[in-house]
Amino acid sequence: MILEVADIRIQPGKQAEFDAAIQRGVETVIAKAVGFKGYKVNKCIETPERYLLQIWWATLENHTVDFRGSPAFAEWRAIVGPFFAQPPLVEHFNLVAQSSD
Amino acid sequence: MILEVADIRIQPGKQAEFDAAIQRGVETVIAKAVGFKGYKVNKCIETPERYLLQIWWATLENHTVDFRGSPAFAEWRAIVGPFFAQPPLVEHFNLVAQSSD
Repeated sequence: MILEVADIRIQPGKQAEFDAAIQRGVETVIAKAVGFKGYKVNKCIETPERYLLQIWWATLENHTVDFRGSPAFAEWRAIVGPFFAQPPLVEHFNLVAQSSD
Repeated sequence: MILEVADIRIQPGKQAEFDAAIQRGVETVIAKAVGFKGYKVNKCIETPERYLLQIWWATLENHTVDFRGSPAFAEWRAIVGPFFAQPPLVEHFNLVAQSSD
């Protein structure tokens, strides 16, 4: 399993709308994708326009090939893209360590 | 509960040593701090010098005041600091949404 992390900056003052849009976008579009395993959305305290979207995928290619190459990618971007102030920084991660509980 | 995210860049070629050091630093120092609730360390696939350290704290001040103002902060930095290529970007986050399972 791999972790996608999208570091997102939205337009100022759109937080409440974006909170709803990103949740709707993940749950109605991304959650149906092959290899989707779960997600988390966090919003930043110090930089209110900053969000971190974490999505767990079965494999890297489930995101980079299957999802990005599917019509669902355009559906997702249609929901969240209008809020973006700049292109998100998206990279993928392996788990090194975590607390046991 | 709030989430601290540290975006870390280490010196090239030190990944294996840093994998062990960051786990040891969290488990022997930070895990004993007041308000510590759990952690996760991830390493980046596309940018091998990049790590994300996530720590959950009971309150923001448990990190920014209690931990950073304690001798434990210097102990922690003595373990991981020598690997850093630049000062980590550290911010704090609230949860917006997550998968139900």
